[in-house]
Amino acid sequence: MDGAEVAGLMQAIGARARAAAAELAFAPAETKRAALLAAAEALWDRRQEIIAANAEDLAHGRDKGLGAAMMDRLMLDEARVQAMAEGLRAVAAQDDPVGAVIAEWDRPTGLHIRRVRTPLGVVGVIYESRPNVTADAGALCLKAGNAVILRGGSESFHSSAAIHACLQAGLTAAGLQADAIQLVPTRDRAAVTEMLRMVEFIDVIVPRGGKGLVGLVQREARVPVFAHLEGICHVYADGAADLEKARRVVLNAKTRRTGICGSAECLLIDRAFYAKHGAVLIEDLLAAGVEVRAEGELADIPGTVPASPEDFGKEFLDMIIAAKLVDGVDEAIAHIRRYGSNHTEAILTEDAATAERFFQRLDSAILLHNASTQFADGGEFGMGAEIGIATGKMHARGPVGAEQLTSFKYLVTGDGTVRA
Amino acid sequence: MDGAEVAGLMQAIGARARAAAAELAFAPAETKRAALLAAAEALWDRRQEIIAANAEDLAHGRDKGLGAAMMDRLMLDEARVQAMAEGLRAVAAQDDPVGAVIAEWDRPTGLHIRRVRTPLGVVGVIYESRPNVTADAGALCLKAGNAVILRGGSESFHSSAAIHACLQAGLTAAGLQADAIQLVPTRDRAAVTEMLRMVEFIDVIVPRGGKGLVGLVQREARVPVFAHLEGICHVYADGAADLEKARRVVLNAKTRRTGICGSAECLLIDRAFYAKHGAVLIEDLLAAGVEVRAEGELADIPGTVPASPEDFGKEFLDMIIAAKLVDGVDEAIAHIRRYGSNHTEAILTEDAATAERFFQRLDSAILLHNASTQFADGGEFGMGAEIGIATGKMHARGPVGAEQLTSFKYLVTGDGTVRA
Repeated sequence: MDGAEVAGLMQAIGARARAAAAELAFAPAETKRAALLAAAEALWDRRQEIIAANAEDLAHGRDKGLGAAMMDRLMLDEARVQAMAEGLRAVAAQDDPVGAVIAEWDRPTGLHIRRVRTPLGVVGVIYESRPNVTADAGALCLKAGNAVILRGGSESFHSSAAIHACLQAGLTAAGLQADAIQLVPTRDRAAVTEMLRMVEFIDVIVPRGGKGLVGLVQREARVPVFAHLEGICHVYADGAADLEKARRVVLNAKTRRTGICGSAECLLIDRAFYAKHGAVLIEDLLAAGVEVRAEGELADIPGTVPASPEDFGKEFLDMIIAAKLVDGVDEAIAHIRRYGSNHTEAILTEDAATAERFFQRLDSAILLHNASTQFADGGEFGMGAEIGIATGKMHARGPVGAEQLTSFKYLVTGDGTVRA
Repeated sequence: MDGAEVAGLMQAIGARARAAAAELAFAPAETKRAALLAAAEALWDRRQEIIAANAEDLAHGRDKGLGAAMMDRLMLDEARVQAMAEGLRAVAAQDDPVGAVIAEWDRPTGLHIRRVRTPLGVVGVIYESRPNVTADAGALCLKAGNAVILRGGSESFHSSAAIHACLQAGLTAAGLQADAIQLVPTRDRAAVTEMLRMVEFIDVIVPRGGKGLVGLVQREARVPVFAHLEGICHVYADGAADLEKARRVVLNAKTRRTGICGSAECLLIDRAFYAKHGAVLIEDLLAAGVEVRAEGELADIPGTVPASPEDFGKEFLDMIIAAKLVDGVDEAIAHIRRYGSNHTEAILTEDAATAERFFQRLDSAILLHNASTQFADGGEFGMGAEIGIATGKMHARGPVGAEQLTSFKYLVTGDGTVRA
């Protein structure tokens, strides 16, 4: 396809999405639920087809020389297909956000005002290798009454198409328009460029993938974007921290999984903590096999590596952490303001006032007190699933579930009421 | 000033606003309230200065040959200064949105999650001739903990500066940074262009003014925008409408004030209503001096003018209304979807199911049942004041008060809690 053909294709997809969204906006909750359950069933029934399609992608990936981590993200087996189907059922089981009354009140004029959730419209999702995003993102958008245009990574082209077919089967079985969930049928990169500019057809874009993809989307999109570029998460161990809680949380925050955006990338230790407890937090990390890039006095601890300035504000996504001593919570706050990415930060302290100061003076999407940064996840927040995590402040923030894929409208009831 | 100087000036203003916002974000509610009350006092104390500054603007406006409506919007007298001061006191009296807990819940992991309001950051307000926007917008942004950059119209240059001095006096009296409310000190249009692109310093732009200004901002802004381009508001009189309520509402919706965005621009009459009640709604409008541009059979009513196709979807902002017969609520919905601007529409009916259909299938920011479209106003909604009305679906919608000038963050409390 040449550029004009891709543009024409995407415009047609956009127009169909817009038309589907207009109908989907008032689809009954039960119908959307039925579509999700039917899609889950289709996923399981067609698991052999899906796995066969995935084998094509894997073969292609091997030829292209994809790394082991990428190949693992790409791979589907029965267990992963089952997990996708369960994800769809979990979204089906959640309350329907559309039509929910967020607030209501009466006015002296006699008017009764309700603020009611309504779908956003059309969501564009641009993702990389994980084929399960097709199911998760499709399900969340449908739940919130939005049409969605999915643009999967070229590595997962066949897998995504097979999963997408199941979603459309679910829509059709429930009597909904198949255009409610569309998958861009070309690997051409020009399709992405087109999506980023389709303000008349797409209301919001959610990029899912590495910093390269997200950065590109944030720079180039004319459509609003829900995203986080990086998760440079900090853990601050205050002088008033409980030692055992601190040890547990620091280790979990860094090592439970290092490749996710909620993994801690920097440990800030209060000098008061260090005076009391010494190097224990760092020693725990070293013992767990973490490379600790330490600044100042901390670099004297055997086994650490001296930190360079660029280790602060860096997303390692690996068994590496930067570490630094600070003078109390205010220096920790100042450091995080300077180097953080407004994603997730944790404070470890038994002093409620210090925790409150950290909560008030920082403005990350998620702030935790005596808990691990690894909880930065829609499932852990009870949202059933998430389409992504947003660090912006417009509309959606933190884990983005179905509820944040909605807008609202005001429904006002009078009795022949006129304005004086 | 040349372009580079304006750019440098605006960047400096932006950096100061960003710094002020970081502090203002956790300013106590009482301090912000004190600043608003002190500003109200300053406005009244300095009313002579303000009126003198306004006289300069009026003289300048006369020289430029501004129209009567524009001159009226520009004019300040004691009563108008008093109204501004009262507006500030009304905003002061409202609950502080910052820190309010929007939702909270517990998780099986033992985590307690709170979703708490936090300021958006820096708001840019670009407006035209009304100098009172300086006070209203400044007050609402401050209330929500946002720094604001105000760019008034060149017509109200001196008036806005005098009002702005009172706002800064209020900030200073309360011990807040004067940079929390800045006014762009140049009439140079390049300052507007610069604001629209300052994504690193401005989080949202609110344009207040005519279609020319709003359209320019919507087209050119790289910063998110809360706005409505037009208020093409519809009133639909259903076959099951109560005649007296319908007469009252139609007349009020069109004629109470014609220059506001909530004024009705199109009347849709159900054929069933027309068969039962005849031309009464149109006759009422004609008797009130409204020019009725009627389509089809309605054009046979004496006194009407035949409608041309472009009269539908047109914002008259005048004693003019387009009128058309439709076959029931579904045709009304289809017409509004095609010609409306997603601002405000009203249905007149005694049939609850028909009203519900209208509420569900339309997606304007405000939908009214048996009430006048003229209620589309933040004050009438109980918000104390509004910075504008938004027809977009991202973040803010309908009348935008202090609450919608906030974002949120998650505050999560554990007890040494780690993720399994």
